[in-house]
Amino acid sequence: MNNFAASTPAVPARVVDIIRKKRDGHELSPAEIERLIKGYTRGDIPDYQVSAWLMAGVLRGFTRPETAALTEVMLRSGEVLDLSEFSPKKVDKHSTGGVGDKTSLVLAPLVAAGGLLVPMISGRGLGHTGGTLDKLESIPGFNVHLSVAEFRSVLRACGCSMMGQTEEIAPADRKLYALRDVTGTVESPYLICASIMSKKLAEGIDALLLDVKTGCGAFMKSEEQAELLAELMVETGECMGKTVVALITNMDQPLGQKVGNALEVAEALEVMNGGGPSDLRHLCLELAAWMFVLGGACDSLPAARKTAGQMIDSGRALEKFREMVELQGGDPSVIDQPGKLPRSSRSLEVLSRAQGYVTAIACEAIGTACGVLGGGRERKEDAVDPSVGIVLHKKLGDRVSRNEPLSTVHYNSESRASRARQLIEESYQISDAPPAEPRPLVHRVIQGSGGN
Amino acid sequence: MNNFAASTPAVPARVVDIIRKKRDGHELSPAEIERLIKGYTRGDIPDYQVSAWLMAGVLRGFTRPETAALTEVMLRSGEVLDLSEFSPKKVDKHSTGGVGDKTSLVLAPLVAAGGLLVPMISGRGLGHTGGTLDKLESIPGFNVHLSVAEFRSVLRACGCSMMGQTEEIAPADRKLYALRDVTGTVESPYLICASIMSKKLAEGIDALLLDVKTGCGAFMKSEEQAELLAELMVETGECMGKTVVALITNMDQPLGQKVGNALEVAEALEVMNGGGPSDLRHLCLELAAWMFVLGGACDSLPAARKTAGQMIDSGRALEKFREMVELQGGDPSVIDQPGKLPRSSRSLEVLSRAQGYVTAIACEAIGTACGVLGGGRERKEDAVDPSVGIVLHKKLGDRVSRNEPLSTVHYNSESRASRARQLIEESYQISDAPPAEPRPLVHRVIQGSGGN
Repeated sequence: MNNFAASTPAVPARVVDIIRKKRDGHELSPAEIERLIKGYTRGDIPDYQVSAWLMAGVLRGFTRPETAALTEVMLRSGEVLDLSEFSPKKVDKHSTGGVGDKTSLVLAPLVAAGGLLVPMISGRGLGHTGGTLDKLESIPGFNVHLSVAEFRSVLRACGCSMMGQTEEIAPADRKLYALRDVTGTVESPYLICASIMSKKLAEGIDALLLDVKTGCGAFMKSEEQAELLAELMVETGECMGKTVVALITNMDQPLGQKVGNALEVAEALEVMNGGGPSDLRHLCLELAAWMFVLGGACDSLPAARKTAGQMIDSGRALEKFREMVELQGGDPSVIDQPGKLPRSSRSLEVLSRAQGYVTAIACEAIGTACGVLGGGRERKEDAVDPSVGIVLHKKLGDRVSRNEPLSTVHYNSESRASRARQLIEESYQISDAPPAEPRPLVHRVIQGSGGN
Repeated sequence: MNNFAASTPAVPARVVDIIRKKRDGHELSPAEIERLIKGYTRGDIPDYQVSAWLMAGVLRGFTRPETAALTEVMLRSGEVLDLSEFSPKKVDKHSTGGVGDKTSLVLAPLVAAGGLLVPMISGRGLGHTGGTLDKLESIPGFNVHLSVAEFRSVLRACGCSMMGQTEEIAPADRKLYALRDVTGTVESPYLICASIMSKKLAEGIDALLLDVKTGCGAFMKSEEQAELLAELMVETGECMGKTVVALITNMDQPLGQKVGNALEVAEALEVMNGGGPSDLRHLCLELAAWMFVLGGACDSLPAARKTAGQMIDSGRALEKFREMVELQGGDPSVIDQPGKLPRSSRSLEVLSRAQGYVTAIACEAIGTACGVLGGGRERKEDAVDPSVGIVLHKKLGDRVSRNEPLSTVHYNSESRASRARQLIEESYQISDAPPAEPRPLVHRVIQGSGGN
């Protein structure tokens, strides 16, 4: 329908005309995007118009300038932390989500031990992926609900702090994310980019390392999708004057051996103690090295890798973790006695039905199995059971004999355990011939034109 | 995000999964469509989920089975009239909307005079197009707000009645249409088909003639869009056991000479009196002939064309119109004295600035000019001025000299008249060379496999 205006103004008078413009595949101006997002955040524009616009955006895509404008207006919808009182460079890491990914627990204290400031605002698990906040909360007493003043005070005391998103940070993203979740408009690299970057840039950081997961356990299943998202985030961050680098990393199987909240804290402690599964240790050191380089603490990656290793070997990373746990109200005794972390009442072993090599692990199914046990949530309001989870004894390329344990399931409910066992059994593929060489943990590094 | 169900049920448990399925271009089952539309009509499913689904449907399209399922569930959301008490065949016509299209005013009485029953539920103008209800209401006293019982009683008395959509008819369509209007999801042939057919099939008719307009004054600008919509509606109607034929007709310029509510009633009376512009008279006779054939009143189109002409020449069409106007509370004296119809207080002539041939008339702009004068509405709640409008003195192919009147504008507000004059001036294209032969009024006839 035409309206009766004789000429077309620079910003269409009606929200429906902004929706139609995106529907027809045209580029929106920054003013149009600002009108829509500000109006929505204020409550002037109803959910049903924004969800139609989001769906048009999911199917039509957004240009780079649109993505940057969207990120900026979402960022400016709330408070942007000013951490300029701190002299060290402020660096953070964000992962797009995977199964068994507990690197943040290691990185925050490790990088703070190396002299940088790590103000980390984290999320909760949703769907098949875990969330850092849920993992931290398996430490008795650990408080992730800090005010900005408390966050600042923990940062001042120990150089790192990990908390949840406050009401003040990117409220436009919170409102939009809740709408996207129920309208089938989550899976858009442009919207994911704006959501992540608006929150991360609100942290007042100088540099950001992105860990973009790809493979069967990631949200971005294909390399191309992961690369597009990584490029979008790097470009958007640079538009806003930040140093941003993205690593495309492998999620063809769970990271490490443990999946589940308390189990993952225990495994992170193993790494901080100098042990832990080699893939997990390797990725933690690689990510930490990049953070050191981005924050200017080291001149080169090889030097930074060495520094990262030293922070573990010297026990300084673990010590920093202990400081943070104490400052945020957690029980530090679990650090020396991980057995004091929540434990499930029962466990069972999933045995291999065949002999051969593990040639595939349906990684998303492992994450889903952990959710089924109670370790994840189907709806945002669900409570999480910190004690349950899965320990994988066999990973890609491992030899396995018939009736040998593939994994141990830690559970509190027989019916949930039986569904989880089925998912795990079906997720392992055992073949006579060994699989091809596994893909490297870090597939690619994506840097902007102004990147280091 | 995955939910934690181990197997996929036939109908996804969650509305968001139905939205995602359409977003990803998959065909929805009739049960999924029913779940969505019934839930929305009942108020269980919120606007914001349905608008996201509508946008996915606009951009992904719908299959024929989806379109039929959507039409059926919208039809069954309300009352379906049972007119089986009437022995004549029940036939209606629907136009997709154009400028100056007043054929319904002639067809209902003409076809009723020929012995068929015409239960016509009509709409209002929106955007640049006029609406039959608005035109009828320019007859003083004419009541389009009939109850179903009153509609039935007028039909019994004179064989035709014209009213607006009641609360009981296709409530799902009313709710969906209001949402589509504000979310940029109007322009989908599949959704237009379901909206039209769910209302028309609720009339309890045996056969339906569709007048699908194409050209610069139609909603479907291209022949291909018009043909797709026509085919969809014919197939959908046949799925439901109705005889449906669509004529693709020309809307490169306004139909007849008059645009505006009372002006169009006057021009329809000219046709019923045996006069009127030749294009309008021709299309009325052609549409009536098809209705006679579809309703089984005539065996062949040539015979039906003859019958249609006789209904006018004998004065029986006009007489039937008079009966209907009286039965619905209208002042029948306007039929003999059209000067008693509402008249604007002022008029002005738009003069040609050049000499030559009229080679194009931007038809949508003429409709918009009528809206600007107050003859249409920008929002549904706006009142309409029945007296204003435009009389075109020159049409496609006509010769015109410099300063010769192209049209007369009937208006009540100087500022509105000045905007309308500008639109009309710009809409006429005058060239030295005559235009190519105009396209025929009826471009194509589209019949289903079981059509007559």
